[in-house]
Amino acid sequence: MEIFNRVESEVRSYCRSWPTVFKSAQGSHVTDESGRTFLDFFAGAGSLNYGHNDPRIKQKLLDYLAGDSIVHSLDAHTVAKREFLRTFQEVVLAPRSLDYKIQFPGPTGTNAVEAALKLARKYTGRETVVSFTNAFHGMTLGALAVTGNSVKRGGAGIPLNHVHTMPYDNYLDGRTPDFLLFERMLADSGSGLDRPAAAIVETVQGEGGLNPASADWLRGLADLCRRHDMLLIVDDIQMGCGRTGPFFSFEESGITPDIVCLSKSLSGYGLPFALTLFRPELDVWEPGEHNGTFRGFNPAFVTATAALEYWTDDELEKETRVKGERVRGALAEIAAEHGGELRGRGLAQGIAFSDTGLAGRACAAAFERGLLMETSGPEDEVAKLLPPLTITDTDLATGLEILRESVAAAREPQPA
Amino acid sequence: MEIFNRVESEVRSYCRSWPTVFKSAQGSHVTDESGRTFLDFFAGAGSLNYGHNDPRIKQKLLDYLAGDSIVHSLDAHTVAKREFLRTFQEVVLAPRSLDYKIQFPGPTGTNAVEAALKLARKYTGRETVVSFTNAFHGMTLGALAVTGNSVKRGGAGIPLNHVHTMPYDNYLDGRTPDFLLFERMLADSGSGLDRPAAAIVETVQGEGGLNPASADWLRGLADLCRRHDMLLIVDDIQMGCGRTGPFFSFEESGITPDIVCLSKSLSGYGLPFALTLFRPELDVWEPGEHNGTFRGFNPAFVTATAALEYWTDDELEKETRVKGERVRGALAEIAAEHGGELRGRGLAQGIAFSDTGLAGRACAAAFERGLLMETSGPEDEVAKLLPPLTITDTDLATGLEILRESVAAAREPQPA
Amino acid sequence: MEIFNRVESEVRSYCRSWPTVFKSAQGSHVTDESGRTFLDFFAGAGSLNYGHNDPRIKQKLLDYLAGDSIVHSLDAHTVAKREFLRTFQEVVLAPRSLDYKIQFPGPTGTNAVEAALKLARKYTGRETVVSFTNAFHGMTLGALAVTGNSVKRGGAGIPLNHVHTMPYDNYLDGRTPDFLLFERMLADSGSGLDRPAAAIVETVQGEGGLNPASADWLRGLADLCRRHDMLLIVDDIQMGCGRTGPFFSFEESGITPDIVCLSKSLSGYGLPFALTLFRPELDVWEPGEHNGTFRGFNPAFVTATAALEYWTDDELEKETRVKGERVRGALAEIAAEHGGELRGRGLAQGIAFSDTGLAGRACAAAFERGLLMETSGPEDEVAKLLPPLTITDTDLATGLEILRESVAAAREPQPA
Amino acid sequence: MEIFNRVESEVRSYCRSWPTVFKSAQGSHVTDESGRTFLDFFAGAGSLNYGHNDPRIKQKLLDYLAGDSIVHSLDAHTVAKREFLRTFQEVVLAPRSLDYKIQFPGPTGTNAVEAALKLARKYTGRETVVSFTNAFHGMTLGALAVTGNSVKRGGAGIPLNHVHTMPYDNYLDGRTPDFLLFERMLADSGSGLDRPAAAIVETVQGEGGLNPASADWLRGLADLCRRHDMLLIVDDIQMGCGRTGPFFSFEESGITPDIVCLSKSLSGYGLPFALTLFRPELDVWEPGEHNGTFRGFNPAFVTATAALEYWTDDELEKETRVKGERVRGALAEIAAEHGGELRGRGLAQGIAFSDTGLAGRACAAAFERGLLMETSGPEDEVAKLLPPLTITDTDLATGLEILRESVAAAREPQPA
Repeated sequence: MEIFNRVESEVRSYCRSWPTVFKSAQGSHVTDESGRTFLDFFAGAGSLNYGHNDPRIKQKLLDYLAGDSIVHSLDAHTVAKREFLRTFQEVVLAPRSLDYKIQFPGPTGTNAVEAALKLARKYTGRETVVSFTNAFHGMTLGALAVTGNSVKRGGAGIPLNHVHTMPYDNYLDGRTPDFLLFERMLADSGSGLDRPAAAIVETVQGEGGLNPASADWLRGLADLCRRHDMLLIVDDIQMGCGRTGPFFSFEESGITPDIVCLSKSLSGYGLPFALTLFRPELDVWEPGEHNGTFRGFNPAFVTATAALEYWTDDELEKETRVKGERVRGALAEIAAEHGGELRGRGLAQGIAFSDTGLAGRACAAAFERGLLMETSGPEDEVAKLLPPLTITDTDLATGLEILRESVAAAREPQPA
Repeated sequence: MEIFNRVESEVRSYCRSWPTVFKSAQGSHVTDESGRTFLDFFAGAGSLNYGHNDPRIKQKLLDYLAGDSIVHSLDAHTVAKREFLRTFQEVVLAPRSLDYKIQFPGPTGTNAVEAALKLARKYTGRETVVSFTNAFHGMTLGALAVTGNSVKRGGAGIPLNHVHTMPYDNYLDGRTPDFLLFERMLADSGSGLDRPAAAIVETVQGEGGLNPASADWLRGLADLCRRHDMLLIVDDIQMGCGRTGPFFSFEESGITPDIVCLSKSLSGYGLPFALTLFRPELDVWEPGEHNGTFRGFNPAFVTATAALEYWTDDELEKETRVKGERVRGALAEIAAEHGGELRGRGLAQGIAFSDTGLAGRACAAAFERGLLMETSGPEDEVAKLLPPLTITDTDLATGLEILRESVAAAREPQPA
Repeated sequence: MEIFNRVESEVRSYCRSWPTVFKSAQGSHVTDESGRTFLDFFAGAGSLNYGHNDPRIKQKLLDYLAGDSIVHSLDAHTVAKREFLRTFQEVVLAPRSLDYKIQFPGPTGTNAVEAALKLARKYTGRETVVSFTNAFHGMTLGALAVTGNSVKRGGAGIPLNHVHTMPYDNYLDGRTPDFLLFERMLADSGSGLDRPAAAIVETVQGEGGLNPASADWLRGLADLCRRHDMLLIVDDIQMGCGRTGPFFSFEESGITPDIVCLSKSLSGYGLPFALTLFRPELDVWEPGEHNGTFRGFNPAFVTATAALEYWTDDELEKETRVKGERVRGALAEIAAEHGGELRGRGLAQGIAFSDTGLAGRACAAAFERGLLMETSGPEDEVAKLLPPLTITDTDLATGLEILRESVAAAREPQPA
Repeated sequence: MEIFNRVESEVRSYCRSWPTVFKSAQGSHVTDESGRTFLDFFAGAGSLNYGHNDPRIKQKLLDYLAGDSIVHSLDAHTVAKREFLRTFQEVVLAPRSLDYKIQFPGPTGTNAVEAALKLARKYTGRETVVSFTNAFHGMTLGALAVTGNSVKRGGAGIPLNHVHTMPYDNYLDGRTPDFLLFERMLADSGSGLDRPAAAIVETVQGEGGLNPASADWLRGLADLCRRHDMLLIVDDIQMGCGRTGPFFSFEESGITPDIVCLSKSLSGYGLPFALTLFRPELDVWEPGEHNGTFRGFNPAFVTATAALEYWTDDELEKETRVKGERVRGALAEIAAEHGGELRGRGLAQGIAFSDTGLAGRACAAAFERGLLMETSGPEDEVAKLLPPLTITDTDLATGLEILRESVAAAREPQPA
């Protein structure tokens, strides 16, 4: 592993928690070069909702590549792109009565967010975007400005402006009515809040600590945006593609965002891919006004199209709910024994420990026991579970048991 | 093609010039679904320097995927990443005596630029970055601020600040000594130019009109940056990976940038991939201070490693120079016949026509004749040639002949 | 009056409410060129706390000017400046145990605020300043950024950044604990609130609608700033110099701000004059780092020194409290009869009417009846009383009676 | 003098060069409290063009104050304001065929500049303002952003944006054609220069080093602004009111700015006063959109009106030119003897020494010899002469002789 330390930048992060070299993977398991296999409750930070190297998707990808099909096309028309557009329209949008234009903003989540923010500002002619406490939207400057984490923000090296941060759901522990401040500031022409172009929100804040917004709160936000003529952007990059159950995490609340950002599990196979969706009347882009070299990465069109077969019925959604209940039960037991607050929804759940170091120690103990998982939250105080949605019941049970042991072990007295 | 028009955003661009649907590709040729084959002088806007679906790289990729190797790993250690680091170090950095740390900033060029700008600002504690007229560095807000194109800038919806734009080489047609203004403003504490963190530059401005900087000018810039304690960032995203001859386009000038951005042809196969390289003492990142979901896309490590075999000797560089001369000769003939200024270097060349519409019409005529190429420059006044570096002499000659015919045809009187 | 309409900019404002031409003034009365005399409940928007043309101050000013004393001195030493510094130190600072350095930042309130903000940012090395809803701090860009009023903000023509607006005392009608959000965002490293340099606050928001902060709230704010190592700036431009009773309006709360801004009534005679006061350890200015042509306007030193005689005992403070009670009683009667919420403190009081147009109509009716007063608040919904502190009991009673009549008259049905 | 050091902020500046306490003044002479009289070649940094305590203006001021006339009126109509408007219109605007609306933006130069910038941005809907190297426009954030001096800029504590700095006349020593870069960047849609709202310029840069713009350059700038639909703002705060000869310093060039800022000598007596003038069609202000407590300081209306008697014929202008020639001759002799470059125009002249410390030492030597003068320029390398325009020939000769001696004395070897 010497070359990583010598040649790669200090910015590397996950490798510090997992001191091994991974080689192969299948489903919910990852194997390192020594042959040791780990159970994966991390799933590429939510990028591998269908597990590693799903055989059906894999075959489609191999066939595509073997046939010398187009790999890279910018935004030229390709057969693979047409197939993706058709399938996404039929499988995802139409059944949900969502009338969205589709933009390929570049292959990563932060591209999707940047495109959303640019479009919202261009369309409304306004500059301020409302973000929420503990939001995470990406690392490029536009997305970083609407991200809460102070370490990430500090990396910008310049002030991050044109944003007003409002409290997320339950941020003040129920001690104030939802949107009280937000509504008041919008209604008051002396509030100092310049009229916002949009609000950008995650339905569950993954990086921010698995904070879930209730359906009521989301409906309240959508209503507020509508009444005040602001656009509502849902960043569904981590929580979309079924992570909380339905394809879009906002479906449960019944809202229809003006703009939606998707990425991570969208390609279904870990390939870089992202979308920005928006109501047709927002499509005020000039041709080429936003572009990007890898906005037409055809292998991702292919795997994403294949992955959408998971969504031709509601099996996966149902299973995710059931597994989510199981996770909740197991976490509740851990919390009962060791303290901690349950967080999240569906298969994005975790425990926030008041001993903020405990989550990190538990993850280290889990790694030793063959389970991959990460922390989240501003103080890394949340042990975060993101198993593949396709995990077997046995694997899920095994992982939860390892977690239970790991938390117990991590609570042992630590050397000074 | 109806679904593209109906479902995809108006932001799409190349597809408007090429009204067909592409299906497969091999080397310098692209075939549409009707079976028509085009000669490719576009090469994915410089992302396919080794042509489409290079057989050797393809086999490596297929083997890797077929073996259920790790696809997505964020910044965990993987076998494929180690192999890439080792090879890049041995084949690229060591022979050129370049001592760079390597950051995987996310899979696209704009990620690489954002990371470079953030690091330069963090390291120096300064905010202003000097950019150059007609620069193009990307579409996310940090990269867009150092980009000159007014249409792209207008898409931001907020003012783009913390940047001072200086004239690029030959911007003022030799009517003023190089760096006269830049030096004067740096030396003068009353100039209003806040001390810059860095200058960011392309050695040849691809999108900006194939404007080449001379080796002298680049050396002058590097010297100026050194004397004034500013970092020099070379954005080698389009011109690197051999586009102008050597692996790094700045090699001819003998300069050693503090930070280098690579992407586009880096993966060698059209897969999203990017690097930010920097001198070790600049590596002041906190772990995770900059991150990104697809910064560990292992198939790209694999193809990039395979592509580096092109660089184990100097054959490709020599060939590129020879082909570049051939292109120059053909373009000179066209310019002699139809007017226009020769632009670019190596296999990034073109003609700027004073009839600004001519380049666009010539590209349309070329498409009709089976040749894919694009325009560049602030008024799309440049017919831009980016053939694969691996193009055969015959194909190159064919394409240049088609171009000649197309320019001639495009000069015919146009219907009103 | 034709020349005003023809030659002066449309930006003029008060003259639209008072369609006459004023000529002379004495104490609480202003006389127009037709000889009509008005009772003044406006007092130069709080700039004439000691009434118009106070005879004692006037004599000092005339003597000074008649003797060819220095008028304009920038920041050179003058006899008049020394006398002011000595007197301000002895009469104002020392008795209150306030250890402040004194800066002459230019002659107006907005200069004082700009200097305060610059110093707070320079001293802390941070950029964000926390402002409060409905704050008013001035019209130059730094001060305007911390001002809430949307019309004023809109005049900037550029986005106003580096500021986060928090709810002022009672902004949410007691439906949330004081500083709940502020404390939470400061404690939470993921809140998106970059660590602030300072908070800037008015103890009573004059332009914002005569909103008073309670002593408890101010103490809470001072405590919060101390605990979080933020500077507390009190803008006492309108409420200082005795407007609420004591010389500094924050005295009642017992807090000691880090920085204080004074202007308006400071010269005691309507002459442009302003101060920025700060704790000695904050005095990190380089010589000349902030300057201004009229920062040494000696006639203002002279009148300000003379005006401080009002503060050699506590008579004025006591009287102001008594008169304030009288005003409160009269306003309570009006509110009882016509509805409305009492606002303000001391001799800065008013009524906010829920019929937002009523305050404006009442002021117009008062003008017709010989009383000058203005509205405030984001919707001009507050009838605002700022009589001279030196007003006689009879004049105060007369004015309050005119106000009562004017409100009644203004409630009459209006012509369509 | 102990109290100044103890109580006043370290930001004080001039008093460090002139270690005495001034008491009275008359015409071109200032007397300190010990009775020592100094000849004044500083004139309040250009605020006392008619000398100290001009007897005729003084009498008008004393009469006004003695009569209990209105002192402070915000923007209500007053007799004194009407008289000023009428006189300014008749004496200044009409004879020069200038059709300007008049705004009272607050009493200082920086207020006038802030109002100008706000109006230009509001009117055009654009954000960027072009400023010039070594410009000085004021200390509030809007004006500071268009100011070049790095020490002043550093005081802001936040980045100063929305500005692009272009080279002032002769900035590059004639090595490049005027406006070459400016024109090119405006014409080139890829230049990165967002379309500017306005350019702001001084005809002679007082603080920046007495750099004069030629009439040709000013005409070129006005023409460029007109062709590119940008507003031209002339900041005539230091060079207006006759400092270079004519009332407006731009008259010689024949240009008509869109917006003009006046202050300093406008009141004629050292009273804070400023104007922003603009073409009537630019008057898009909402009532009260820009305001300020001391925008109606009537004693300044009175003295300014009285001062305009100097402009009812062309005597003063002629005299200033003659005196300017005399100054130039004397400075040429000094430059011939001691080296140095002549700078400035009219009665704003000086010498830039290549030994940058010499100007400061010469000013110190001059003070010892009874002459007050200051340095300017980014390195304080310019000995700057701003005598009152009304100075007698004898006093002018005396001062120039003292200057000659002082420079000679300051060139003596300095102790290490």
